[in-house]
Amino acid sequence: MTNLTIIGNGNMARGIATRALAGGLTVEILGQDATKAKELAAELGTGVTFGTTAEAPQGGIVVLAVPFDAAKSVVSTYGEALTGKTIVDITNPVNFQTFDSLVVEPGTSAAEEVAQLAPAGAHVVKAFNTTFAGTLVAGESGGQPLDVFIAGDNADANAAVSSFISAGGMRPLVVGPLKRSRELEGFQFVLMTMQANPEFADFNWDTGLQVTK
Amino acid sequence: MTNLTIIGNGNMARGIATRALAGGLTVEILGQDATKAKELAAELGTGVTFGTTAEAPQGGIVVLAVPFDAAKSVVSTYGEALTGKTIVDITNPVNFQTFDSLVVEPGTSAAEEVAQLAPAGAHVVKAFNTTFAGTLVAGESGGQPLDVFIAGDNADANAAVSSFISAGGMRPLVVGPLKRSRELEGFQFVLMTMQANPEFADFNWDTGLQVTK
Repeated sequence: MTNLTIIGNGNMARGIATRALAGGLTVEILGQDATKAKELAAELGTGVTFGTTAEAPQGGIVVLAVPFDAAKSVVSTYGEALTGKTIVDITNPVNFQTFDSLVVEPGTSAAEEVAQLAPAGAHVVKAFNTTFAGTLVAGESGGQPLDVFIAGDNADANAAVSSFISAGGMRPLVVGPLKRSRELEGFQFVLMTMQANPEFADFNWDTGLQVTK
Repeated sequence: MTNLTIIGNGNMARGIATRALAGGLTVEILGQDATKAKELAAELGTGVTFGTTAEAPQGGIVVLAVPFDAAKSVVSTYGEALTGKTIVDITNPVNFQTFDSLVVEPGTSAAEEVAQLAPAGAHVVKAFNTTFAGTLVAGESGGQPLDVFIAGDNADANAAVSSFISAGGMRPLVVGPLKRSRELEGFQFVLMTMQANPEFADFNWDTGLQVTK
């Protein structure tokens, strides 16, 4: 049985799959490009299955490890094949033309837009939008386990995602309903502009975001 | 010469004053209540001057360590007395009735609303909205110096606030123009709901927010 399907074969797919495998989950990689999906699956180790997005996802949790526009397209295309699934939206809808705003309007979020496109029987959960890929592969930042901020409207779906995150050695923080994705996406947008800003010489798309105590 | 005027005599005034004094700055406390301002000044140590908000602030940097509505009122009342000053807005405009939204509309921020009320010759800088009072007094969170996120439109004002923050043993992070306050306020709103949520037993208005590496 497959626990987790990851749509995508890039750096975020690699990072999330690495943590899931560390947590003992079974992982399926579905990419647009069959060769790249096969290569990533092989790199991750034995037992990782793979295929293309022409196939229906097998996992109960489906992580959309693709950019925002592609995430919307994947959900629309799969349609009813996602019924009963927990869909994890990790996207940051940054306007990369201006790098001065999001491409979603104030008062909404990428996760809410993705949820609008999902079938009624699926639950969309925001997670992993503040964890850069390299920190997921490393499994830590600043010597601490990663904090993963989670927002979602369905308690069971939030719990399923939290459970996987805990298994992978990270700290799940369920911050509230799906609309809290607005604030999660907004803050990560700011952190992304800092990575791109040469004044922050130490920040190179490799920082973590931690609630300390 | 006074470097820093703090408007307010509550926990945030205490925290920011503690760090400023640790950094060797001279501090003035102006409260609505003369007795409370005097008590806080005495608690902070010798050399801290005090008075009421009936007096014009002496510091080049004026920190509004009061709630959002009071911050707007202070700026309006002072008017031209703030010309030439760097005004630090630390507020979080949370709707404490619902605890489910901010009281400012999406697409704006408390800092921008305060700036609308300030005289043309003053510069408003957002800072300290993610640092809880206790962590400022302690000067650390999780064993690390505090990160202080800063947003402002005037480079000199941002630099002056950064300099004070560095002197006080904290890490200044100038994230961008004043409108980035929207994202800073939005995220802290989420962190505040977590402090109030009994599911986060460890979070009691005492956590820090850190960019790790």
